[in-house]
Amino acid sequence: MARGFRQKIRQKDTDSSGFGTNASGRFINKDGLPNVRRKGVNVFNRLSWYHTMLNLSTFRFLSYLVVAYILVNIIFALIYYSIGVQHLTGIDKSDPVNEFIDVFFFSSQTFTTVGYGRIAPVGFLASLVATFEAFLGLLTFAIATGLFYGRFSRPRAYLRFSDIALISPFQNTNALMFRLAPYKNNALTDADVIVSAAIEVIEDGVAKSNFYRLETRLNKINTLALNWTVVHIIDENSPFNGFSEEDFKNTDIEIIVQVRAFDEVFSNTVVQRSSYVTREIIYGAKFVPMYYPNKDSQSTILDLDKINEYQQVDLPVLAEEKG
Amino acid sequence: MARGFRQKIRQKDTDSSGFGTNASGRFINKDGLPNVRRKGVNVFNRLSWYHTMLNLSTFRFLSYLVVAYILVNIIFALIYYSIGVQHLTGIDKSDPVNEFIDVFFFSSQTFTTVGYGRIAPVGFLASLVATFEAFLGLLTFAIATGLFYGRFSRPRAYLRFSDIALISPFQNTNALMFRLAPYKNNALTDADVIVSAAIEVIEDGVAKSNFYRLETRLNKINTLALNWTVVHIIDENSPFNGFSEEDFKNTDIEIIVQVRAFDEVFSNTVVQRSSYVTREIIYGAKFVPMYYPNKDSQSTILDLDKINEYQQVDLPVLAEEKG
Amino acid sequence: MARGFRQKIRQKDTDSSGFGTNASGRFINKDGLPNVRRKGVNVFNRLSWYHTMLNLSTFRFLSYLVVAYILVNIIFALIYYSIGVQHLTGIDKSDPVNEFIDVFFFSSQTFTTVGYGRIAPVGFLASLVATFEAFLGLLTFAIATGLFYGRFSRPRAYLRFSDIALISPFQNTNALMFRLAPYKNNALTDADVIVSAAIEVIEDGVAKSNFYRLETRLNKINTLALNWTVVHIIDENSPFNGFSEEDFKNTDIEIIVQVRAFDEVFSNTVVQRSSYVTREIIYGAKFVPMYYPNKDSQSTILDLDKINEYQQVDLPVLAEEKG
Amino acid sequence: MARGFRQKIRQKDTDSSGFGTNASGRFINKDGLPNVRRKGVNVFNRLSWYHTMLNLSTFRFLSYLVVAYILVNIIFALIYYSIGVQHLTGIDKSDPVNEFIDVFFFSSQTFTTVGYGRIAPVGFLASLVATFEAFLGLLTFAIATGLFYGRFSRPRAYLRFSDIALISPFQNTNALMFRLAPYKNNALTDADVIVSAAIEVIEDGVAKSNFYRLETRLNKINTLALNWTVVHIIDENSPFNGFSEEDFKNTDIEIIVQVRAFDEVFSNTVVQRSSYVTREIIYGAKFVPMYYPNKDSQSTILDLDKINEYQQVDLPVLAEEKG
Repeated sequence: MARGFRQKIRQKDTDSSGFGTNASGRFINKDGLPNVRRKGVNVFNRLSWYHTMLNLSTFRFLSYLVVAYILVNIIFALIYYSIGVQHLTGIDKSDPVNEFIDVFFFSSQTFTTVGYGRIAPVGFLASLVATFEAFLGLLTFAIATGLFYGRFSRPRAYLRFSDIALISPFQNTNALMFRLAPYKNNALTDADVIVSAAIEVIEDGVAKSNFYRLETRLNKINTLALNWTVVHIIDENSPFNGFSEEDFKNTDIEIIVQVRAFDEVFSNTVVQRSSYVTREIIYGAKFVPMYYPNKDSQSTILDLDKINEYQQVDLPVLAEEKG
Repeated sequence: MARGFRQKIRQKDTDSSGFGTNASGRFINKDGLPNVRRKGVNVFNRLSWYHTMLNLSTFRFLSYLVVAYILVNIIFALIYYSIGVQHLTGIDKSDPVNEFIDVFFFSSQTFTTVGYGRIAPVGFLASLVATFEAFLGLLTFAIATGLFYGRFSRPRAYLRFSDIALISPFQNTNALMFRLAPYKNNALTDADVIVSAAIEVIEDGVAKSNFYRLETRLNKINTLALNWTVVHIIDENSPFNGFSEEDFKNTDIEIIVQVRAFDEVFSNTVVQRSSYVTREIIYGAKFVPMYYPNKDSQSTILDLDKINEYQQVDLPVLAEEKG
Repeated sequence: MARGFRQKIRQKDTDSSGFGTNASGRFINKDGLPNVRRKGVNVFNRLSWYHTMLNLSTFRFLSYLVVAYILVNIIFALIYYSIGVQHLTGIDKSDPVNEFIDVFFFSSQTFTTVGYGRIAPVGFLASLVATFEAFLGLLTFAIATGLFYGRFSRPRAYLRFSDIALISPFQNTNALMFRLAPYKNNALTDADVIVSAAIEVIEDGVAKSNFYRLETRLNKINTLALNWTVVHIIDENSPFNGFSEEDFKNTDIEIIVQVRAFDEVFSNTVVQRSSYVTREIIYGAKFVPMYYPNKDSQSTILDLDKINEYQQVDLPVLAEEKG
Repeated sequence: MARGFRQKIRQKDTDSSGFGTNASGRFINKDGLPNVRRKGVNVFNRLSWYHTMLNLSTFRFLSYLVVAYILVNIIFALIYYSIGVQHLTGIDKSDPVNEFIDVFFFSSQTFTTVGYGRIAPVGFLASLVATFEAFLGLLTFAIATGLFYGRFSRPRAYLRFSDIALISPFQNTNALMFRLAPYKNNALTDADVIVSAAIEVIEDGVAKSNFYRLETRLNKINTLALNWTVVHIIDENSPFNGFSEEDFKNTDIEIIVQVRAFDEVFSNTVVQRSSYVTREIIYGAKFVPMYYPNKDSQSTILDLDKINEYQQVDLPVLAEEKG
């Protein structure tokens, strides 16, 4: 909870944050999604299954497809079996298990439209069901095609943020710094960053969050190919002006970051968000450089493993803190 | 129809509304589409069948696909039948009905390319038709693939608007309020709202609609994760300045709302519109909060079922009304 | 060619038109594409076949698909035939023509993957070719799927422009007017228009085109559901200031129009262009209204067939012309 | 390396370039991608395979597909073979090689779902593997469909840049010029250009790059149908002010160009970048025109082969150089 620090707040941005002053817990999760749960309405209306399928991990997505494939074939096998195996040619009728196995494989050969014909429907009902199973199979693969395309064509920034933000010395004062770098072979240009801070304060005995826009030294860069160290100078315009190490440790702070850039391959704007809370802010440290020239000095190497590397430094004693 | 209220109109926005002053009925339907019907041109030129297919409900869309599938197979079955069943191997020739049934199933096995081969074409004509049916089948499923993808990848805001707008007390004066909330697991950022009002007046004995842009206290929020209560303060810049309860009841009013936001999953701008007419505006009421902290205070719950909940309140007696 | 009119040109926009002052003929064709032909480079490098396929009419696109399908099957039939029909089971070997016909159908059954199996490959070579034909078939339909989707998901404005522009009376002076209307069931919002004029003049005995941006009374409307009459007032800021009927008839003029709007179904910006040349500008006429209330006055009817309807009117005698 | 030229630098743009001052080698490669290599993280995490597949040449992309198809069939053939050829009907069992060949073709007929049925699975294991191979085949072609669509629907500017930039006379002074032209049948509008220069200087004995934004005479044109010659006038606001021919030859310069336009077919913004280094800048030359009227003067011809054509010219002796 918040406590009495010397707060000289200007330009509160609370209203336009979109979060109420009494929303609870972290606002933005580390993965960039808001920490809000919805209830009411029907759960099926509340879920966009397309958004859900796009956000699944590749492994889970493929597992769901395989499980659905097996289930569908079991269901159709049961239908064919109840219609009667005598309406399918080429079934191994040695015992009921073998019958069911052959019916299952007939179903899969129909659903995938492979249709060898060794097993084939002959009666009206079996043929009718097969007619719809083949149709359903094609529609299912039509949907799967869309899902695959939706998943891998989804524009994403592929940015890695440093896990921690630092309070570092910067030009005779302090600055809040964190950094980010593109980690894939995508080409980002015209990147900009918006940083805001939610700081919990006690007003009239009630804890509430105030939101502030944090100015950054650069909020736009042309080519996002190397790492970008975002610098918020802690001067009289910063809500952190006059914060001591103790204040940073004992105040509930959340730094919310939104990066927007243009991806040249997707020809689309991509956005990625992240946040830093109190325990992820390190006082008195600076980042270690993470890029260096290649041996032949003809290109630059960006070492992504160094993104979280920092070293402890002394911060300058500022006039205000001395006073 | 409109009547004589104390109207102090500034900044009419009539021309840029896109609606003429003598258009009739509601301008924007509750679902956000304009209340305009087109005639002339050929009806086929006037319909974008792709827009139509995207706007169908899932149930109707799937029904259309199934009906089309059956119709296509009946048509091809008739063609094969008229060519002669002797050009198909494996046909059950016990009677004409069975012949037709088998020909129908042969058609479906060709159209879906399942091609068991129990029934197969042998003559030139039957083979030729089958050649084109298989081709047509694949093209059809190519189109279906596109339609499925178009339907579920279509960027949508998934916003729920309150059914009613309220005239509520706000900071010593009145305000027109309505609210909206995202109801699916999509992530919206950088939302803005544009609100305008169409108010019917009698000028020279003729009823016509004037359009006004309504200023809102906030027209932009960063993260649209909780509900957003849009507030139009009724002060001297509002066309509703000095409106009494009677005026709100007896004037033909339409509040037109457009919300625009950035969906992070689609990486696309999404837009949703709605409108409120006279009978959907409630005088002297305020909304009940619809979000609250989770039990552990570590996240926030948004209860979508409460979006229309309000309670009656007294409105402040304003100087102007008193005077 | 141009001649001596009283030209009071301000703000020439020639450089940023993108057309040189000595480009020839119409700049923008009626369909909105620039009237430029490219040569050099390889013709295959100069054509984006995807753009080409998207711009084909539906009839030609489908025809190309059918022709390609037949050609591919003829080519593969020739390959199978030269390998030898003895490597395919089930072939009708009564005479070479029947052999070729059966080989052709085998090819089509492989390419579409229908694979009845009545005809099937048995030798190594025939099986190998069939292996690749089936693979090629699937890739071809993969490409066709993309083309279909690309064609019908391509965001388009679906605007109809009036064929003619008018010089009409407007608020004590004259104005150049043309109109446009959406003719499909798409929903356009936030439309804006940019109008420019290319006027040919003789400078130092050489004909060249000057470009001017034309101001319009409204350049933005909120909802593009009815028709939009774009009005350029001919005042002292217009390059047509002081133009007589003769001047309009005898000067080489091209009015270039670009409309941009947001389509809510595609969630995308759409653009459409058109142009009016000298012979498409009518002096002394005004448009007839093209929308009216429905019988029950509950909605508005837009009659697209009236878009070109106008009536002759007298233009006001302007001070400048009198002087 | 850089040397002592009379440098009057204003408005350094170094910070927002996104490149550090001590990055090495060319910043932007001729193809527009940054000259940066990444290390760290897992190589699979560092590669977006979708971006990779989209950037492959058509030939390599198709080759990869064919190779993958053959490999998959070999793997499945080995599985079927180890299960035992007795579980497949119709296999040529004359010798092991023929057995393997038939198993391979059975695999391909399953993977493509052509399924003639001449060879068909009969046992449990063989049927099970075939069930999954057909499923895998359909998913693979679903992915291939997405890749094809992603490849050809990817919005691209299709601009050709001149290989060289020139220092040309322009209105009593010098200017840096290069030109670009669309070379495909795409329609680009609202094009803008951003040009910056990286100039290497020695500061305190250390070579570092300073970045400057270069002003251009026009940075926006309406229709990009003909070629566009971008002109940066070398006046007192240019970092090249006072540069002699020697300076241009001996200084490490990189001109970085970014063009952005709206493609009307894709309805999307497209971006293309390029760069010119010291050896690609020619002092004292001007471009030869590359478009001319058609024979009938009714349209304009753009000759793309002339994009690099220039002729030597004398540059004006400038006051500063004289002084």
